Amino acid sequence: MKKISLIIVGFGVIGAGFARILHEKKDYLRDLGLEYKVVAVCEKEGSIISDEGIDLGDVLRLADGKKLAQHSGWTKKKSMQVLDEVKADIVLELTPGDVKRGEPGYGHIKKALSGGMHVVTSNKSPIALHYGELKRLAEENNLKLRYEAAVGGAIPLLNLRDKCLKINEIKSVYGILNGTTNYVLSKMVEEGISLENALDEARELGIAESDPSYDIDGLDTALKVVILANNLLGRDVSFEDIRVQGIRDITSEAVQLAIKHGYVIKLIGDVGRGEVSPRLIPVEHPLNVSGSLNAVLLDSDVAGELTLIGYGAGARQTASSIFSDLTEVTQFV
Amino acid sequence: MKKISLIIVGFGVIGAGFARILHEKKDYLRDLGLEYKVVAVCEKEGSIISDEGIDLGDVLRLADGKKLAQHSGWTKKKSMQVLDEVKADIVLELTPGDVKRGEPGYGHIKKALSGGMHVVTSNKSPIALHYGELKRLAEENNLKLRYEAAVGGAIPLLNLRDKCLKINEIKSVYGILNGTTNYVLSKMVEEGISLENALDEARELGIAESDPSYDIDGLDTALKVVILANNLLGRDVSFEDIRVQGIRDITSEAVQLAIKHGYVIKLIGDVGRGEVSPRLIPVEHPLNVSGSLNAVLLDSDVAGELTLIGYGAGARQTASSIFSDLTEVTQFV
Repeated sequence: MKKISLIIVGFGVIGAGFARILHEKKDYLRDLGLEYKVVAVCEKEGSIISDEGIDLGDVLRLADGKKLAQHSGWTKKKSMQVLDEVKADIVLELTPGDVKRGEPGYGHIKKALSGGMHVVTSNKSPIALHYGELKRLAEENNLKLRYEAAVGGAIPLLNLRDKCLKINEIKSVYGILNGTTNYVLSKMVEEGISLENALDEARELGIAESDPSYDIDGLDTALKVVILANNLLGRDVSFEDIRVQGIRDITSEAVQLAIKHGYVIKLIGDVGRGEVSPRLIPVEHPLNVSGSLNAVLLDSDVAGELTLIGYGAGARQTASSIFSDLTEVTQFV
Repeated sequence: MKKISLIIVGFGVIGAGFARILHEKKDYLRDLGLEYKVVAVCEKEGSIISDEGIDLGDVLRLADGKKLAQHSGWTKKKSMQVLDEVKADIVLELTPGDVKRGEPGYGHIKKALSGGMHVVTSNKSPIALHYGELKRLAEENNLKLRYEAAVGGAIPLLNLRDKCLKINEIKSVYGILNGTTNYVLSKMVEEGISLENALDEARELGIAESDPSYDIDGLDTALKVVILANNLLGRDVSFEDIRVQGIRDITSEAVQLAIKHGYVIKLIGDVGRGEVSPRLIPVEHPLNVSGSLNAVLLDSDVAGELTLIGYGAGARQTASSIFSDLTEVTQFV
């Protein structure tokens, strides 16, 4: 049995979702010869620390009622201090990122790597905004930094290339990388409603934030385009290099006119061209997926075109990608 | 630089296709730290053997003109004798399989594993018909036996589960696993023609064999269903367990009636149910792919539904999956 210690930084939707699967799948992982022990859980107000390993069942129950501070291991120490003081094999950086500076994930990842800990993250901003620096830092310290969950939710893209398409050079990558905009555009097609009304529906279902500009204006897709360009295409691309046009100006009339001619309008991240823009997609094209699905088309020199469709978000679905990285990194512990 | 010796058994479309990519990508593989040396190439009439490694450029030129016997290393020794006499790290079993007994692949794989060599194969019949025995033989000898290319051509399914969906239990798998039938059914939709006429077109393009029963009657799909059931769902399924209905009786009228109601008819391999049958699929469903594409829907307990669409056949595309296995197995050499 291989024993691996973890620090979970960020215990919101993604962090708690990961912890729930880790808890649920304890026996399944044991059958694979893997025993994970969580030695710290950090959130905004403080942290829970336990050298012997934290019972995730307890923590999840307390987190549901927003009562983490009632845990016996609770301390007011913040994440950065915990990453200094507590040692683990792997840090899971699962906080939401700020699109301007990539904080607090950027600081967490640097601190973890400098402290000799591997990092698995679902946080796209630090990877998109500080790719070169973080990659170098990991390499210099002979550590792994992996971020499958930062792009495409449950759809394997980075590990797919590394593990399943090894002989291939990826020639192009494009697709629907944001579930919120796809939900809104699909609703506009299906119900003939305006963008504003579709957004209201999405907000009610928790698919869109109260301020949805980050999704609607294409910024979320652009961050993912940066990550895919650097990782899959081996480019050296910055956020500023991406031309971004969102879907804010798409009218109900435009959507209906497109349908009349056999097309749908989709917000497409075109990784090769470094572009995010609404595009006309034939109704029967594999990228015409509805609801909050994501769909990505990879073209490579040996396998040819490969399309992947799956859930681009959701706590549970994202955990699938986090675990894909985690079990991979575990080999290097 | 890791040096790995290979024996290629079978030098038809798939074998030569693999060799072509290996030749083409020599430098690319060197950059990955991998140097593959082919010490034997076996085909029906005899073999080429060279301890120092065979120049694949030469062999491919001769194979194009069906003049392999002119090669300086040519011998009349057949594959079974070569597998006895020549030692290599990995055997690539790339012959076509016979659907009744799985020969000659079955014999090749047993001989290779018994002789202490790992096996990578594109050959579905031996794996579908003798799964338990071959799996046991590999395990007893502490060797790897991998067969990604046997199912779904370039679409990663087995390695995808192993490498990218590790935390998931696969709940169901179904889809289009045979490119020939999908080409025929797509043509019937698009051109309103009969099955026979669509088959004639497919034959002209080399997509269908002169006797297409193996595809049309669903046997090819059934073999793949067996492999996926055993591998992805952990079942213990035999070829005889699969209920198989092909597309021979699908009329042009049935296809047109389906379209009128928003459906297409597709030959679906349903792995969970152990069934191959023509089914109605909504026009906008991700499994409605046209031409000779394959499309597979995996449902798993964490990632949720994931759809993969890609080339189910083709020498070059299949080589992508063979290399995915080869680089994986190389780690164990």
